[in-house]
Amino acid sequence: MSEVEPVERTRVVARDGDRQVERDDALAVEEPLEIRIRPAQGGPGRPFVTTMRTPGNDEELVAGLLFAEGVIQSRSDLRSLERPVDPRIDPELRSNVMVASLVPEAHARGEKLERGTVMGSACGVCGKTSIENVIPADAVPLETRLRIRPELLFAMPERLREGQSVFSKTGGLHAAGVFAADGSLLALREDVGRHNAVDKVAGWALREGRLPLAGRILLVSGRASFELVQKALVAGLPVVAAVSAPSSLAADLAEEAGMTLVGFLRGGSMNVYAGAGRITAP
Amino acid sequence: MSEVEPVERTRVVARDGDRQVERDDALAVEEPLEIRIRPAQGGPGRPFVTTMRTPGNDEELVAGLLFAEGVIQSRSDLRSLERPVDPRIDPELRSNVMVASLVPEAHARGEKLERGTVMGSACGVCGKTSIENVIPADAVPLETRLRIRPELLFAMPERLREGQSVFSKTGGLHAAGVFAADGSLLALREDVGRHNAVDKVAGWALREGRLPLAGRILLVSGRASFELVQKALVAGLPVVAAVSAPSSLAADLAEEAGMTLVGFLRGGSMNVYAGAGRITAP
Repeated sequence: MSEVEPVERTRVVARDGDRQVERDDALAVEEPLEIRIRPAQGGPGRPFVTTMRTPGNDEELVAGLLFAEGVIQSRSDLRSLERPVDPRIDPELRSNVMVASLVPEAHARGEKLERGTVMGSACGVCGKTSIENVIPADAVPLETRLRIRPELLFAMPERLREGQSVFSKTGGLHAAGVFAADGSLLALREDVGRHNAVDKVAGWALREGRLPLAGRILLVSGRASFELVQKALVAGLPVVAAVSAPSSLAADLAEEAGMTLVGFLRGGSMNVYAGAGRITAP
Repeated sequence: MSEVEPVERTRVVARDGDRQVERDDALAVEEPLEIRIRPAQGGPGRPFVTTMRTPGNDEELVAGLLFAEGVIQSRSDLRSLERPVDPRIDPELRSNVMVASLVPEAHARGEKLERGTVMGSACGVCGKTSIENVIPADAVPLETRLRIRPELLFAMPERLREGQSVFSKTGGLHAAGVFAADGSLLALREDVGRHNAVDKVAGWALREGRLPLAGRILLVSGRASFELVQKALVAGLPVVAAVSAPSSLAADLAEEAGMTLVGFLRGGSMNVYAGAGRITAP
């Protein structure tokens, strides 16, 4: 993590059976981030969405979230990302606000999303008669040539843990990591929200000009939800692995999109819920 | 759980080292629920919010979510909850939509929330100069007389697990339970989303005329986020306990609201992050 310490010290009353001590403890920091989109004519920007996140890598989080929502489609759609300069905003709150300036086409997509189908109230799935309609028409097809040996996948959770901060190894923060096909860890981001951790790695890839992430593997420390598979799909990731369980809709979307979805990747074993063809047979 | 099976059967390729078998497996069902609010003059209703949830207890989920957002403030604010009758909606999708009819005052609150500060883009925290401003001005103060013996708390995680379905005991679903001060379990709800599980128990309480939940204890199977503590606060719960870690903002809000917040409640031990006075000393 950069910029900000993702851990806050606190005092707790620790009870163990009949024993009671007061001692120091650490908590994962959770703070709101308000993402504002600045109009073409300038100004303080309009609130677009707020997410509860762990501070650190905010630029990546904003870039990744706007990309996942289809507001920006490439690095050049994002003109700038900055803290607000509006003097009406309390200086102490500036670190919880990020203002994005977009090229006109991206700005129009953001406004359309806000107006027609505001995030949160927009249902990308309810009105669809089948899961295939959820896949964006302009989605880049996932790479199909990739083949991975299971041993490489089995080694990834340990690599992810090694890359995490001491605190998050205790389970205080979710982690998302992007791996190359040879098993090397390319990027790792942490957050109290697993969707934020994925947005951060996607934002990293966008800002580094590495999208789509064809031939890469996404590993998440927790479960795999529909939203997470959807974000991976937009980023072009052909393989998603989770240390814990996927949901039914996550497995359905992965199957329909031709993505490989691995769950319960731990202790040298795993379940493959979709796209087993990318994993070499024994 | 009622109505719908929260578990979906699937086939997986299970790899364990060099061995590979194809076998049956079970997944937690995740499906979208679009919540619509019907205007006073009737009609199909306008989309208010969509949440990804595990089907089952949808009426409770909708009631609890509208209550947590301040749209409805009592049972009588909610005139009816029903599946859509609009013939344009695919019959297969009806189970993913719920239409709420509200009394005019509640309807106006819903519209205000949509118009001014749409859910998801509304930041209830960013613009506040301190955590105390997050607490609703009309929030019922939490009960202060309650005293609980630690042994009762230590026994609750096992009671929660006993009450869960066989599947969710494996970790496939989050659980939220409301306990009486004598340690008995009053209500238990499950969901892929922990916030949904809490909305479901709050909706249960609302529909049963049991709000505020003064003198009750909320136990959640996972972590405690800010949002979760906020929902518990609105429901008047003086004690929130989590099997896993709280976030910094969850602990801050609990402290400010005079709520008891317990984390890592497992194996006969716990950490008390706020309001330790309600737990009897050794």
